[in-house]
Amino acid sequence: MTGIGFEILARDGAARLGRLSTAHGTIETPVFMPLGTAGSVKAMTPDGVAATGARIILGNTYHLMLRPGAERIAALGGLHPFMNWPHAILTDSGGFQVMSLASLRKISEDGVEFRSHLDGSRHLLTPERSVEIQRLLGADITMAFDECTPYPAEREAVEASMELSMRWAERSRQAFVPRPGRGIFGIVQGGVHPDLRQRSAARLVEIGFDGYAIGGLAIGEGQDTTFAMVEATAPALPEDRPRYLMGVGKPADLVGAVRRGVDMFDCVLPTRSGRTAQAFTREGTLNLRNARHADDPAPLDPECRCPACAGFSRAYLHHLTKSGEILASMLLTAHNLTYYADLMLGLRKAIAEGRLADFAFGGAAP
Amino acid sequence: MTGIGFEILARDGAARLGRLSTAHGTIETPVFMPLGTAGSVKAMTPDGVAATGARIILGNTYHLMLRPGAERIAALGGLHPFMNWPHAILTDSGGFQVMSLASLRKISEDGVEFRSHLDGSRHLLTPERSVEIQRLLGADITMAFDECTPYPAEREAVEASMELSMRWAERSRQAFVPRPGRGIFGIVQGGVHPDLRQRSAARLVEIGFDGYAIGGLAIGEGQDTTFAMVEATAPALPEDRPRYLMGVGKPADLVGAVRRGVDMFDCVLPTRSGRTAQAFTREGTLNLRNARHADDPAPLDPECRCPACAGFSRAYLHHLTKSGEILASMLLTAHNLTYYADLMLGLRKAIAEGRLADFAFGGAAP
Repeated sequence: MTGIGFEILARDGAARLGRLSTAHGTIETPVFMPLGTAGSVKAMTPDGVAATGARIILGNTYHLMLRPGAERIAALGGLHPFMNWPHAILTDSGGFQVMSLASLRKISEDGVEFRSHLDGSRHLLTPERSVEIQRLLGADITMAFDECTPYPAEREAVEASMELSMRWAERSRQAFVPRPGRGIFGIVQGGVHPDLRQRSAARLVEIGFDGYAIGGLAIGEGQDTTFAMVEATAPALPEDRPRYLMGVGKPADLVGAVRRGVDMFDCVLPTRSGRTAQAFTREGTLNLRNARHADDPAPLDPECRCPACAGFSRAYLHHLTKSGEILASMLLTAHNLTYYADLMLGLRKAIAEGRLADFAFGGAAP
Repeated sequence: MTGIGFEILARDGAARLGRLSTAHGTIETPVFMPLGTAGSVKAMTPDGVAATGARIILGNTYHLMLRPGAERIAALGGLHPFMNWPHAILTDSGGFQVMSLASLRKISEDGVEFRSHLDGSRHLLTPERSVEIQRLLGADITMAFDECTPYPAEREAVEASMELSMRWAERSRQAFVPRPGRGIFGIVQGGVHPDLRQRSAARLVEIGFDGYAIGGLAIGEGQDTTFAMVEATAPALPEDRPRYLMGVGKPADLVGAVRRGVDMFDCVLPTRSGRTAQAFTREGTLNLRNARHADDPAPLDPECRCPACAGFSRAYLHHLTKSGEILASMLLTAHNLTYYADLMLGLRKAIAEGRLADFAFGGAAP
């Protein structure tokens, strides 16, 4: 098989239960993908990540091209053996992070010239180079190189940015080398303008991708607008291909987007929160630094199967966060990723059983 | 059984192969005890610590009395359930750390008054309170409260300090509540003066303890002097009781001290090194930040059974340390504790087989 397989197993309204097939295994959707930014899901071993239930993670082209370098990772066998992750990897294109992290950016028709935030060295990222880097990394799913349009922005600027991203999408598609179990996704842009979103989607479908992402959202426009854009975009995408809402989100965002037909998600929230003493639980988000946890012998979430809830009290987790112990980040990240994995598991079960309308998951009830 | 059991299974010269029995399991000696300073072996889960082979760890009275507080830990069931460590725990007395960490210390016959390094709050640590704290923590092995004599110091000051520690040792022994599988160790002081060491040892033996520690060494006097003090002290201690050399040390220090009849050790080195990119290997110590590792596909140590060596290359570990990833600390700490555990395993095997004179363990050959 060339490309990425995707099979829809059940539907509930606009929501879909699916199965994604890659060179590194199959993934049940809707799925949340933990961030493995610089070749590590922060504060987790690969075994620990897999134990949460994750079978696909994200790698970041921008970080990895700068350190340790795509050619170096390729010489070491690719990102999978480098980071000892045997399951699937989706890599972003670098487009988003070059805008948020690099300095002295210069955008042209060709691509983006920038200086590394690490050492000031000069780099050029083009659609062709982005796709090449993702091939060197060994990505199962490559993302087309795009410009993430700033928000807010004038409609004219949004339109021009989207059109540039569509030309880059075509170049990305042409640069992609088809291989068994590997695929490339296009990214819909168009800001908060439904007609631009639809034009972008139509253009990507014309080019033809293995899957379609909705990009440029969750950057300050608010949940209502995010949902409105998903509603405007999803119906314009092929029914039989996976849909990925990039950078989203909070538990309630995921539930709402799944209800609107999205299959894949990524977000920094569960991992970053794990390093800042925030825990997602079925009764809402907890700040473990809060003194009210100091004497509490209860686990974070009695229904959770993660290592933090299996072995430790809120009092202990409070102590670890107050003491700045690394174990706090380790346990809370494992917990938050397990929460997200179980939320998605619950959503898949609800779709299979046709009861998504009644779905609630503690704090994630939308 | 009241107290700590200790059985000597084999001898090789002055070295002993032993078995320590506590309320939380038996421990084969010679043994290295990882530091669980503030209720966590830094960057490790308890399961991970046990996987290195460790069956006894250290807890620090000074850190835990200040945060989260001994009474709080007692209310939560003690340190074992609090940190989810089912095996044995030895707690220090607070004497060493109150001198190195606290401010505005005032030593009197009664004890040490000081201000917390965390919040400036005032505290008094006496032999009675130290032993009470260690009981509240649920220590399997309690250490007598002592003054760690500074080095270098005039003989007169060393002698006066040792005599104070001996009076505190007697008060510690009297304050200790005998319980099954729990014991209290005395601590020999006396600086670098063999006759003071011997007088201290004789006084402790007269009081009678479950085990005997050699304290106040490895604070700058040099390995030759450390070994000379062990040689002067060990023969003055009861043959049938465990001997613990506090705060030691490098691999070669452990080998030399075992040869001189020491059974137990603790040191910050393997855990702290794991957080500063240093790895102990059979070919010596490696600094993973060094650029020469950037493209090296080999594991840290091909003979090592730890998770870092089983799954990751030096190139990857180099990348993690350069990127400041928490996983670097996690993997290198697991590796270093495994190295120390396997070093001690090798020493035990060599004693059992009567070939300690030929013992070598890569970089640990003395």
